[in-house]
Amino acid sequence: MAQQHLDPTDPRTRPVGTDPTGDTLAGYLRAQATEFLRALRLHRETGSGANGSEASAEAARALRRSARRISASLHTFQPLLDSDWCESMRPELAWVSGTLAMEHAYTARLERLLTALHRLSGSTAFPSQAAGADGPASPRARDAGARATATAATAAPERGNLTVGAAKAGALLDRQLTLARTRAHSTALQALGSSRFHAVADKVAVLASEVPLRTTAAATDLRPHATAAEERLRDAVTALPLVTAGHPYNAAALVHGLSPDTVPHPQDAPWHQVRLLLRLHRYAREALTGPKGNAVVDLRLLSAGQALNQHRDASEAAAAAAQAARTPRIAPATAYALGVLHADQRHEVEAARFAFQQAWQKETVSAS
Amino acid sequence: MAQQHLDPTDPRTRPVGTDPTGDTLAGYLRAQATEFLRALRLHRETGSGANGSEASAEAARALRRSARRISASLHTFQPLLDSDWCESMRPELAWVSGTLAMEHAYTARLERLLTALHRLSGSTAFPSQAAGADGPASPRARDAGARATATAATAAPERGNLTVGAAKAGALLDRQLTLARTRAHSTALQALGSSRFHAVADKVAVLASEVPLRTTAAATDLRPHATAAEERLRDAVTALPLVTAGHPYNAAALVHGLSPDTVPHPQDAPWHQVRLLLRLHRYAREALTGPKGNAVVDLRLLSAGQALNQHRDASEAAAAAAQAARTPRIAPATAYALGVLHADQRHEVEAARFAFQQAWQKETVSAS
Repeated sequence: MAQQHLDPTDPRTRPVGTDPTGDTLAGYLRAQATEFLRALRLHRETGSGANGSEASAEAARALRRSARRISASLHTFQPLLDSDWCESMRPELAWVSGTLAMEHAYTARLERLLTALHRLSGSTAFPSQAAGADGPASPRARDAGARATATAATAAPERGNLTVGAAKAGALLDRQLTLARTRAHSTALQALGSSRFHAVADKVAVLASEVPLRTTAAATDLRPHATAAEERLRDAVTALPLVTAGHPYNAAALVHGLSPDTVPHPQDAPWHQVRLLLRLHRYAREALTGPKGNAVVDLRLLSAGQALNQHRDASEAAAAAAQAARTPRIAPATAYALGVLHADQRHEVEAARFAFQQAWQKETVSAS
Repeated sequence: MAQQHLDPTDPRTRPVGTDPTGDTLAGYLRAQATEFLRALRLHRETGSGANGSEASAEAARALRRSARRISASLHTFQPLLDSDWCESMRPELAWVSGTLAMEHAYTARLERLLTALHRLSGSTAFPSQAAGADGPASPRARDAGARATATAATAAPERGNLTVGAAKAGALLDRQLTLARTRAHSTALQALGSSRFHAVADKVAVLASEVPLRTTAAATDLRPHATAAEERLRDAVTALPLVTAGHPYNAAALVHGLSPDTVPHPQDAPWHQVRLLLRLHRYAREALTGPKGNAVVDLRLLSAGQALNQHRDASEAAAAAAQAARTPRIAPATAYALGVLHADQRHEVEAARFAFQQAWQKETVSAS
């Protein structure tokens, strides 16, 4: 069953007639290193203004993508590579992709939360920019929103305050996450200009032409290492509460939602771990197929991975809503809206687990 | 398909060899009237103190049960009965069962909400009685809870306020729903002692011996009327958004959850209506089987009905949490907890719709 994607006779997974060895891995790493350098050049050409152009954001995504793949290959196929080089390289690549990911993560988190508030408040034109946020700071937003808030409160004196709460919650999240995003942008720019990053880029440039394989690598089969990555994934999935997850509306994701010990939720950690292992498995499959890594996309694996991305995003959005609710001096209506939003995102977490269980079950059934 | 439960040849639904006519209906009504009088006597014997003993509560339940069945029969089989009598009797029976239902409803709602808060706050010993509620009034609760609140806030200065929020939300709901329950209890006692109620009881006493059938009733088949009740149910179910409901985690129940126009949610109304029509259908089936109304319980119908009861209870609990959040001068942490609780109950609403869809689908499949 675990062999399904790694069957050497399967023409989908690799070129016919060649066994994947250290040379295959070297080709894959060179291709990813070249892609890293191309993306870096593109990122420098497209500029890096505070607003980040679309092309610049795309270049950053490409940089992260290749950094993740190189790092993953160093992990999965370490026995074929120079181990000192691997150990010095991996944390640096993780630092690059992690640093570059933050700005995008805050942008996506804000968009997710504002979209949810739109849905929850049933307004087609949600005035998140117009309403004043609670709490300290942002006198600009406060002034801009004063009239809108007063109007809504007058129009619906009894029940309108909840809607004002949703608008204020949106403005508060907007302010907090935009600030975080701006800081992440500056941090990323500083990182890209640092000597630490230049050292990483230099090493990747060397990798693009010369991969530090061990002498035995050319005769070493990649497949047992890829299989081990798949088995680590399967073991971790086995430890997940999949029976519960497969039962819709199990209400598990919101358990302890008001507990003081559970932001972020410890129950999410094994799922985050499976997300990383699934990615390692996917990249290992890519590496087996040679330089371009054109593995035929396994749609079930893809939906399982997407479900885990949703899980991570909803989990972090829920934590951001809970965090915003701790802002001093917010109005009760704002806090109420943030509570509804937090619970809504925790249910998205639960929905993502259900989606993962469904995708994984399909895979297991068809593979057995 | 619609005939399934009404097949006259089916030995489960009625005594073999007798067609259900006005006489069958009269027997059923006499039995229910007798049950009403028995329950009323029991209720008077068991007393009606402010705390309502278990026996007294059981008697009130039995009173409501028989009142609902008589009222439903008057509705479904009205063409067989004296129409002036029916028209004067039905609103009075609805008043009796409605008035008696309120105290129990508030008790159950409070229990549901406190249980949910327990689950959400992850505490095995939830201090709902100990913590002071926010808002005006209840200096007693405020004093009692002051120490507990201060202790929790000291132990976890940064995140503890949310847990305090859950405790305060529980205390606030406890106070508001206990007050409502006490008022409902007084109202029920007043109703039971009123001349209006004595008039209803007198009419039911007459019904126990003499049912005002029309002259044609003895020759009239009950089944077309019962079938019509079933068809009204099926038509109403057809109008429900069952495709959406059957798709887990559709997030439909929380849509407009923060809108000012939607407490209680108008989207719940068609489901509440189906709940009533399902009950009418069930009582009509009972009446067909004669005096005792011992219809074989249709398990699918039962689970569909239970899902709709859950739907109603969760819908009203969610509205109570939203209502409590409008209490003046509550703390943001209290409001946040009430927001989480509201969303949690709206997801219970969604879960109940899913459960109904599953039960109903089974019924349709097996009946076709």
